[in-house]
Amino acid sequence: MRLSKTFIKTLRSAPKDETAINGAYLVRAGYVHKEMAGVYDYLPLGLRVLENIKNIIRDELNKLGCEEVLMAALQNPEPWEKSGRWQSEKVDIWFKTEVSSGGMLGLAPTHEEPMVNMMKSYITSYKDLPLYVYQFQNKFRNELRAKSGILRGREFLMKDLYSFHTSEEDLDRFYAEVEKAYSRIFARLGIGDFTYETFASGGIFSKYSHEFQTLLSVGEDTIYYNTDKSVVLNKEVYNDVVLADLGATGEKFEETTAAEVGNIFKLKFKYSEPLGLKFSDEGNAQKTVYMGCYGIGVSRVMGVIAEKFADEKGLVWPDTVAPYQYHLIGIGEAGTAEAEKFYTGRENSVLFDDRDKRPGEKFADAELMGVPLRVVISDKTLEAGEAEITERRTGKSWRVSVEKLFSM
Amino acid sequence: MRLSKTFIKTLRSAPKDETAINGAYLVRAGYVHKEMAGVYDYLPLGLRVLENIKNIIRDELNKLGCEEVLMAALQNPEPWEKSGRWQSEKVDIWFKTEVSSGGMLGLAPTHEEPMVNMMKSYITSYKDLPLYVYQFQNKFRNELRAKSGILRGREFLMKDLYSFHTSEEDLDRFYAEVEKAYSRIFARLGIGDFTYETFASGGIFSKYSHEFQTLLSVGEDTIYYNTDKSVVLNKEVYNDVVLADLGATGEKFEETTAAEVGNIFKLKFKYSEPLGLKFSDEGNAQKTVYMGCYGIGVSRVMGVIAEKFADEKGLVWPDTVAPYQYHLIGIGEAGTAEAEKFYTGRENSVLFDDRDKRPGEKFADAELMGVPLRVVISDKTLEAGEAEITERRTGKSWRVSVEKLFSM
Repeated sequence: MRLSKTFIKTLRSAPKDETAINGAYLVRAGYVHKEMAGVYDYLPLGLRVLENIKNIIRDELNKLGCEEVLMAALQNPEPWEKSGRWQSEKVDIWFKTEVSSGGMLGLAPTHEEPMVNMMKSYITSYKDLPLYVYQFQNKFRNELRAKSGILRGREFLMKDLYSFHTSEEDLDRFYAEVEKAYSRIFARLGIGDFTYETFASGGIFSKYSHEFQTLLSVGEDTIYYNTDKSVVLNKEVYNDVVLADLGATGEKFEETTAAEVGNIFKLKFKYSEPLGLKFSDEGNAQKTVYMGCYGIGVSRVMGVIAEKFADEKGLVWPDTVAPYQYHLIGIGEAGTAEAEKFYTGRENSVLFDDRDKRPGEKFADAELMGVPLRVVISDKTLEAGEAEITERRTGKSWRVSVEKLFSM
Repeated sequence: MRLSKTFIKTLRSAPKDETAINGAYLVRAGYVHKEMAGVYDYLPLGLRVLENIKNIIRDELNKLGCEEVLMAALQNPEPWEKSGRWQSEKVDIWFKTEVSSGGMLGLAPTHEEPMVNMMKSYITSYKDLPLYVYQFQNKFRNELRAKSGILRGREFLMKDLYSFHTSEEDLDRFYAEVEKAYSRIFARLGIGDFTYETFASGGIFSKYSHEFQTLLSVGEDTIYYNTDKSVVLNKEVYNDVVLADLGATGEKFEETTAAEVGNIFKLKFKYSEPLGLKFSDEGNAQKTVYMGCYGIGVSRVMGVIAEKFADEKGLVWPDTVAPYQYHLIGIGEAGTAEAEKFYTGRENSVLFDDRDKRPGEKFADAELMGVPLRVVISDKTLEAGEAEITERRTGKSWRVSVEKLFSM
């Protein structure tokens, strides 16, 4: 991408109500535009980051045999009434809207009910199971407060996966596979070292669920971990009974803040029973389908990465999610000509600052935008047949020959 | 994709309220699931078709230098109040919803207002122009009736492009480029021969706008064309004054039905003026930005293609939008083994019916699902070292050597 051709610009300031670091930097660096608290537009660079995150998740889920769909946001109350989640007293984050032909619709805050309802058309026999179906879809939540940039949205992108099984054993097997896939996903996203699978409350049918929590000073969750971080718990289950259950009685635990980037849940019959999702077994008996659900907050992950790695100069993207790999700057006549050559054919990996601006301004923008490697080709570096590479994360610079650069 | 592994199944019947051919076939063939009138979920095959359509549109728009973004569905009333389109008396298809922290939000039925509002952060000088920004985004419209399958949705996928210019001449230039790009897009989508650019009413600032109408018996629009189809008009502008204006007085016009798949519109100052989108010109004078907008109904196009080409046996997809290129069936032990070999490494272009079903049932499903080429490898065809290929569109069959098949 040529910065001279794109509509985005780095901005001197973020909106006044943007108090979160991730939100402020993402707005200033031209990745997102803020519509209102908790509602953002994704600009070309931001959309590339989102797509990179989606592709990593998609790749790992497809390896497990999961199938991608795209469900509607508009929700018929019927299946939600069956599960008891339509009433605002039960679920208080609904956006509801009147239909001109009569009645009400909701905007999906999650998709268990329509997913279970849909699968009634496709699951009849044990031969149809197991099945794993996921989507990347905008969720809508009528949050009273949304002050954390894209960490907590009224409208946000989520990956939600639902699994369907004939038995608890098969649910357990797949749940364990997803646990491993999630670890791979967060590692590939560059936050593996700071992300812990934590015990969380399980609800009616399961003792525990699990969350994936990334250590983050501005995270909204409180978690507790023991010395070797082999046991990590959510605040809601941090009590003597649970610690005894996990064999961690007497261990020393520390408290810290974190952001929930994923959660996995053995639903068992929680939705399949009230909505009547059944299968006929080998003996032709009707049985209720076992279910699991597995979420990752895609736009939240983007916010966590932005917030986690940012420094006083701006954003710092891991290679795997960065919108581009190289931030290219040419200085002087020969340097600019050589930069043009480097850019040609590398439009998909190079962000080329070909604007008519001073080098200092370009360097500052490169730091704000956070692309992993800055490549500077100047008349001066060319005298030695070289270009200068600077790693955004560490600030380290080194020279490479132009020949080597062009082989990259 | 292996049919034995996917959750989708062909269904014997569509929902009772599904009267449209496109909706009924798309549901029966497992491309979509109907949530309610005008609201559908996209299943794996349907999602692939949507993505194929998006990629063709994206490719042509990117060639024009357009940039992709993704805007929010939730709408702050403020910019819509400025343009006068917030009141339900003016725009009667709003879905509106209450915010828990107070006030109302809308679900975007289109995006002119937030787009113009956003661009106020990015357009200040003539040096910033022209700019072309587009998105693929779900629109929400509170339609009283939605009985045409995915041809008319309460929630539907649209591509909307907005252009920003310093002068009417530059708007005219880009408008003409989009006209050509749209013709290329509809040609690549396989409906070019049946799609006409029609004159439609222009609103306050322009004499005419243009629609792209695909001839379709169940289309909701009425259009008029002269003998050589050099002048095609919408019903709303089919009158003597317009015919005289287009130099078509006295010509014979025929009436037909069509579905609107795209529209392009010279907005000029329609939204930039009330929302105050200005630029400073070379002489530092503040001037209002000229705008154009350009839509394509992505999910509607999928419905039009489904409806247009379907025959009594099911769907018929053009190659360019088909979810897969080959519908593979193995018959007998050797035939099935050879089919497995053909499938390996071609997972992205082959829909492999490896289910334990009779060949007749598989043939019927292949016809219902509408993949362009059916490939049958049976013990019998293998005796001659051959496979049988059948073109879905024409029903024509021919033999190819296994060697040639594997080189495809």
